[in-house]
Amino acid sequence: MNITEKILARAAGKKEVSPGEIIEADIDLAMTHDGTSPPTIKTFNKIAEKVWDPQKIVIVYDHNLPANNIGSAEFQRITRLFARDQNITNFYNHGEGICHHVLPEKGFVEPGKVIVGADSHTCTYGAFGAFATGMGATDMALVYATGKTWFMVPESYRLEINGSLNYHTTPKDVILKIIGDMGVDGATYKSVEFCGETIESMDVAGRMTICNMAVEMGAKNGIMEPNKPTLEFLNERISHKFQIYTSDRDYEYEKEYYLDVNSMEPQIACPHDVDNVKPLNNVKGTHIDQAFLGSCTNGRLEDLKQAADILKGKRVHDDVRMVVVPASAEIYNLAIQKGIISIFIESGAIVCNPGCGPCLGAHMGVLAPGEVSISTTNRNFKGRMGDPESEVYLANPAVVASSAIQGEISDPSDFIK
Amino acid sequence: MNITEKILARAAGKKEVSPGEIIEADIDLAMTHDGTSPPTIKTFNKIAEKVWDPQKIVIVYDHNLPANNIGSAEFQRITRLFARDQNITNFYNHGEGICHHVLPEKGFVEPGKVIVGADSHTCTYGAFGAFATGMGATDMALVYATGKTWFMVPESYRLEINGSLNYHTTPKDVILKIIGDMGVDGATYKSVEFCGETIESMDVAGRMTICNMAVEMGAKNGIMEPNKPTLEFLNERISHKFQIYTSDRDYEYEKEYYLDVNSMEPQIACPHDVDNVKPLNNVKGTHIDQAFLGSCTNGRLEDLKQAADILKGKRVHDDVRMVVVPASAEIYNLAIQKGIISIFIESGAIVCNPGCGPCLGAHMGVLAPGEVSISTTNRNFKGRMGDPESEVYLANPAVVASSAIQGEISDPSDFIK
Repeated sequence: MNITEKILARAAGKKEVSPGEIIEADIDLAMTHDGTSPPTIKTFNKIAEKVWDPQKIVIVYDHNLPANNIGSAEFQRITRLFARDQNITNFYNHGEGICHHVLPEKGFVEPGKVIVGADSHTCTYGAFGAFATGMGATDMALVYATGKTWFMVPESYRLEINGSLNYHTTPKDVILKIIGDMGVDGATYKSVEFCGETIESMDVAGRMTICNMAVEMGAKNGIMEPNKPTLEFLNERISHKFQIYTSDRDYEYEKEYYLDVNSMEPQIACPHDVDNVKPLNNVKGTHIDQAFLGSCTNGRLEDLKQAADILKGKRVHDDVRMVVVPASAEIYNLAIQKGIISIFIESGAIVCNPGCGPCLGAHMGVLAPGEVSISTTNRNFKGRMGDPESEVYLANPAVVASSAIQGEISDPSDFIK
Repeated sequence: MNITEKILARAAGKKEVSPGEIIEADIDLAMTHDGTSPPTIKTFNKIAEKVWDPQKIVIVYDHNLPANNIGSAEFQRITRLFARDQNITNFYNHGEGICHHVLPEKGFVEPGKVIVGADSHTCTYGAFGAFATGMGATDMALVYATGKTWFMVPESYRLEINGSLNYHTTPKDVILKIIGDMGVDGATYKSVEFCGETIESMDVAGRMTICNMAVEMGAKNGIMEPNKPTLEFLNERISHKFQIYTSDRDYEYEKEYYLDVNSMEPQIACPHDVDNVKPLNNVKGTHIDQAFLGSCTNGRLEDLKQAADILKGKRVHDDVRMVVVPASAEIYNLAIQKGIISIFIESGAIVCNPGCGPCLGAHMGVLAPGEVSISTTNRNFKGRMGDPESEVYLANPAVVASSAIQGEISDPSDFIK
């Protein structure tokens, strides 16, 4: 079996599972956020009175925090009362950050666990060797009630990435390149397993960036075997023992994909599809109105530092507003202590409270008709960040920072050594 | 003449003016923000082609920044294009902060000037010995076109405040007490001149807090003769000479008001009127859902420090979200360097980007039906911060911080020495 199958077999109480098989799995952790909790609660209230295990539920407010309108405020009030009634103490409504960063940061994510979240990018936790996938609020209501859900065991793709990333080329570029090659429906309902020397030597932030976007090629989950930095990260946060699963070396994958990143340049996903990926050089000079640094894809300390290194002592272009949103309060505070936030402020960037920021087009940097944003986020669908006539280009933090300075999509290597 | 009359006489090119007289005044500075610029521009475009003097116009984005929806984004785009076309270079759209703080901070506010702003709280600049008042967008369009406007010279009230403020009692409490005594229509179209030893010895932040709320008793303007801290503030920002106006000592005011603050306790403006003011002791124990620290009234470094001193090493109550919004990027950065922002983050407060924040109920902390906020802002009108069934209590930063910790309106002196 591969890593995903081994985890699902364990969760289903079976010795073995195989692709296509329907299983009922015990859920180790379930997550909802301020946007998806209320519909989950609405369905839950029709079918049950008490959640199966309040300790296995985590609720994080991140999408519209602080509340951006009366509707959001009511959603948050409903969820707050539910959490209190149900004794859900893993309840983060004080701006702790984006769910997909807060869960690992607070030690909820463990290798080998089955984690479901009412959010597409739940697949992020695959970076820690967990099986993690998003589901809708109705399915989540059943999980809240029973602690179980059904899965069809996915077929698996093996994506092997080798080589060293160049300066200003990052894990974001790796996953953009992969999605460009695979297509937005290139891995629909597949388990995509990332491996190879690039992944094995990658830091936790980069691994999270890559797994985060697995869903953008349609994958059921993205997953990696834990590496040394991952184990260090986990051991800092989890005191008990956890089991690590790995894929059998002779496992036969449905598909294998190879990427050599040695000479790869930064990649840009152009409007309006995540697989409309071009090398940076092909889109250089495109006018931008907004630059966004943040999100569950690229809002970590490593990302902020990369952008700050470029912005230090420079000014955001007069015609561009740059919005910076750290992925968590812990990151925010670390970035303050390292002088990173001051660099942003002094460069003219707008630093907002931790959370999803403008990624979803609901507040903190909504685009007007005709406006263009370069963004470290994971989706550039038509209208994603505002008006349907706006455009979003997805890029890595270094490219976003250098574009913010230049007022157009630009290559940091062109003016920063 | 008094200080206001002398300034208006100068601006009207007259030796003397008297209350009730209609004058045409030359405008020294005109300000609009992201909310009021587009209606100003719309009217302006019907009557003129070029603004009278681009150097005398300042535009600041603060109300909905970063844009909270497509409409705001379009408003900002319209204004951005107008500023570019008209060569208005005093254009702050990068989150520099709240207009009423940014203008003095950047050296635009001078004693003796006539300053108009398309925002009610333009009266803030009276703290620097300027005549400053708010006006609607239609009137402002005429100012943009001609550099002139008409005023009826207001009658004047003299408000003399003496005594020393107790620990945890602040300039905010002084102005709340005054408005409670005077009533929300107690000074309609009057010039209110603040004086007395308390005002003479007050720091710039406190003076701004007091003048900021002059409009809450209906005043045309609030004004103070510049004191030593004010002159220091101005000399740090303005290199040329400016003239200081003072009131004739024998001027006969329409009304005189005296307040001794020696034994005054913190004051709270209760829902839903700014003059529904009660001593803190009378409302202690009122449940709160949100605590907001910021705004043009109380978002300055002194205010943040006062709150941080109370929050240090403590936690915001689980049931309360505390929102902190520095009044400007400069304040934000100073607060970072002084460790103040880290104190907020570590206490569980949500620190947002500089601007108006939730004050106006448009984003960053909108209240749900039935929710209660304690807030350092200047208005508690029904529905001001969200749902019409929500409530806002106005208080000083120390009371807001201690209430955030306790989960109910509380007196910082009860648990903090």
